[in-house]
Amino acid sequence: MFHEKFAEGVISAKQFDREDIEYILKKGREMISEKNSNLLRDKILATLFFEPSTRTRLSFESAMYRLGGNVIGFHTGDVSSIKKGESIADTIRTVENYSDCIVMRHSLEGAAKMASKFAQIPIINAGSGSGEHPTQALLDLLTITEECGTLNGLNIGLMGDLKYGRTVHSLSILLSNYDVNIYFISPVELRMRNRDKDFLQQRQMKYKEITDYRKILNILDVLYMTRVQKERFIDLEEYEKVKNIYTFRADDLENTKGNFRLLHPLPRITEINPNVDNSEKAIYFKQTYYGIPMRKAILAELMKN
Amino acid sequence: MFHEKFAEGVISAKQFDREDIEYILKKGREMISEKNSNLLRDKILATLFFEPSTRTRLSFESAMYRLGGNVIGFHTGDVSSIKKGESIADTIRTVENYSDCIVMRHSLEGAAKMASKFAQIPIINAGSGSGEHPTQALLDLLTITEECGTLNGLNIGLMGDLKYGRTVHSLSILLSNYDVNIYFISPVELRMRNRDKDFLQQRQMKYKEITDYRKILNILDVLYMTRVQKERFIDLEEYEKVKNIYTFRADDLENTKGNFRLLHPLPRITEINPNVDNSEKAIYFKQTYYGIPMRKAILAELMKN
Amino acid sequence: MFHEKFAEGVISAKQFDREDIEYILKKGREMISEKNSNLLRDKILATLFFEPSTRTRLSFESAMYRLGGNVIGFHTGDVSSIKKGESIADTIRTVENYSDCIVMRHSLEGAAKMASKFAQIPIINAGSGSGEHPTQALLDLLTITEECGTLNGLNIGLMGDLKYGRTVHSLSILLSNYDVNIYFISPVELRMRNRDKDFLQQRQMKYKEITDYRKILNILDVLYMTRVQKERFIDLEEYEKVKNIYTFRADDLENTKGNFRLLHPLPRITEINPNVDNSEKAIYFKQTYYGIPMRKAILAELMKN
Repeated sequence: MFHEKFAEGVISAKQFDREDIEYILKKGREMISEKNSNLLRDKILATLFFEPSTRTRLSFESAMYRLGGNVIGFHTGDVSSIKKGESIADTIRTVENYSDCIVMRHSLEGAAKMASKFAQIPIINAGSGSGEHPTQALLDLLTITEECGTLNGLNIGLMGDLKYGRTVHSLSILLSNYDVNIYFISPVELRMRNRDKDFLQQRQMKYKEITDYRKILNILDVLYMTRVQKERFIDLEEYEKVKNIYTFRADDLENTKGNFRLLHPLPRITEINPNVDNSEKAIYFKQTYYGIPMRKAILAELMKN
Repeated sequence: MFHEKFAEGVISAKQFDREDIEYILKKGREMISEKNSNLLRDKILATLFFEPSTRTRLSFESAMYRLGGNVIGFHTGDVSSIKKGESIADTIRTVENYSDCIVMRHSLEGAAKMASKFAQIPIINAGSGSGEHPTQALLDLLTITEECGTLNGLNIGLMGDLKYGRTVHSLSILLSNYDVNIYFISPVELRMRNRDKDFLQQRQMKYKEITDYRKILNILDVLYMTRVQKERFIDLEEYEKVKNIYTFRADDLENTKGNFRLLHPLPRITEINPNVDNSEKAIYFKQTYYGIPMRKAILAELMKN
Repeated sequence: MFHEKFAEGVISAKQFDREDIEYILKKGREMISEKNSNLLRDKILATLFFEPSTRTRLSFESAMYRLGGNVIGFHTGDVSSIKKGESIADTIRTVENYSDCIVMRHSLEGAAKMASKFAQIPIINAGSGSGEHPTQALLDLLTITEECGTLNGLNIGLMGDLKYGRTVHSLSILLSNYDVNIYFISPVELRMRNRDKDFLQQRQMKYKEITDYRKILNILDVLYMTRVQKERFIDLEEYEKVKNIYTFRADDLENTKGNFRLLHPLPRITEINPNVDNSEKAIYFKQTYYGIPMRKAILAELMKN
């Protein structure tokens, strides 16, 4: 059923109802113990990164190899046919003849959705501009449920660049399926966009917007930090004003609950001080670990025969 | 016999007599139904793209994986050892120790031929400057024979950049082995070079040179369009004059025969309007589909033990 | 034991005592006759080339595929997360969750050592600035022992850029475990650094520093040439002065012993004239051949279960 519902691929967190999330998290959990398999033997994944990526691309490629499949792809938008002026639609209609599933990242918000309209094979949105990054949000949920035991009832802070940050957009949408208390923590300039908040309100998500994380740190179960993404700002002056607004340090940990967990999709620049890294509460490298089983689960579901 | 004759690789369409073409097309056809195999298990293909490529590189890589092999390579000429000043000969004599077959693209016409003189393993020319692109021409023939049923007696138009277009060079050479009527359609500035026409005349190919495709559209069975390739022009003013000379539109289709087929090696920019894409007569994306079995056949033949 | 001793990986030639060298050379020799295997089936190698490479990267990738494994990686430092400002430590702590072993090249001397402190999986130093390149030195030794039959008692010249050349640094360290006579041949400006010579003196290596290779050519068994590496010079005027200081030509061979062998880690620019290539004494392309079995042996040892 997941397989049929997601025949066009994973484009947006909005495709997922609670049952879908539970199902794919369960599949992700099963993949943790089964490091290698031949489930996708004879399958080819195409990784089309029009916008550069290290983590997400390598994570998908590793997941595909762990499933016995193979990978083709390109790594920047600075590639031959795009340089020559080819449209996304044409690139997709070509690459679908070379592969069984396409993972794509693009600087435009609607790119993955558009690609899925032209493709006969599933598309996975691995980041579309300031829009969404649904597989990151799924691996974030796998991390939280594995490390915290549950989602329900948690106090979760989402902090940093809530305006341009595609990971928090997808994560907050997924969380709107659960009974959680959300704190959107950002400077005024980087608050969630109204259209995103409207969607969450329709789903009756309980959230508050604040600017100083220290005021609620002691009640949080999870703090999800994000990088202020220079590449999304049109006005670099605006970027300079907010880029260093938050820096989480080791002494911040003293004001947190025993079960508090700090997440970050990475890369981090200055927003988490390295002196936090060795704390058991810092689980951002574990997130990258959970990325493999989660993406294996997604790839296996989409390429099921 | 094909295997022995092509021990040095596939460098030029001129290597192929009619028997060779028929043989490799037959092998290509067999690969259509056999999507995956282990024919080239334990073999490594090196894809050396000194000049960038998306389609051709990914097509060869997908073909190699479908045959159970592996791929190493680089994707632009902007790579380490070449930047450091290494000669093609040295690069080839190095990479042949890492692989079983080399696919290479280079901006110089004689590059693949030169490489084959230094290599102990087969070289496949995946585009040598304005010269040739023989495997593209073979997949074009596979497409035409599969979609039109035959080659003999067809009226075939080759249109666009006939001066710099390496795909039409190789395709016209292959077609010179058949009883076909060729129409070279281009602005005067982009006509076939004399040396290319001399070769075809020696082989007694029947061809005409015209500039307005509309005059013969109603008699064509196949129209093979090409992009005017900005990157080949030394004089960009010359490019500006001719770049938009042809744009095939949906209403052009009304003047074509029922079995008319429109091909294009892709990428296309403005020379075919997207409103043509949904016609059954437009088979340029099918060409990319046929690229996989055709390249699988070539790789399998060259790396046979 | 090798496996345990090198659990952190291969960072420096200084890790190797004579027993280690003999062991891994023996393993390398065994790999020559066993072209393909499934020893590393289900293993993933990450090739992180912060500094570009063709030869070394493709060599490791080919070796990994010949062992039945898979490869992920990036090819320049111009990649996404590094551009975004990520530290090496963070990149390593991420990629170790995607792979079983990391091969890395970086322009900073201490990079690989630093990486090995953060990683739970083995790191292989594939070139760290002007520092070391230990796996190149091991394949050089495999080449010499296979082609000359022995190391002991040989007169070996190391020539070219001894100041910045990381391959000669690692090679001379490995050779300090043997009874050999070393001639460091370079212009005064490119002599071995004092810290490197101090290390070799402590190990009581017998060496002489000279500038004109012709004076000792007739007594050498092995001459190991290197490229003057433009990319390591801060002062380009200094580079211009020394870049063409040596050019080995065919007539130089007349003054060499019958068993003389000429090596070069490649790429070479002008320092060996192509008219030398066809001599049986020129074995620099054989070096690339021996690179595969040597790197297979290293990878197999480090990723043993």
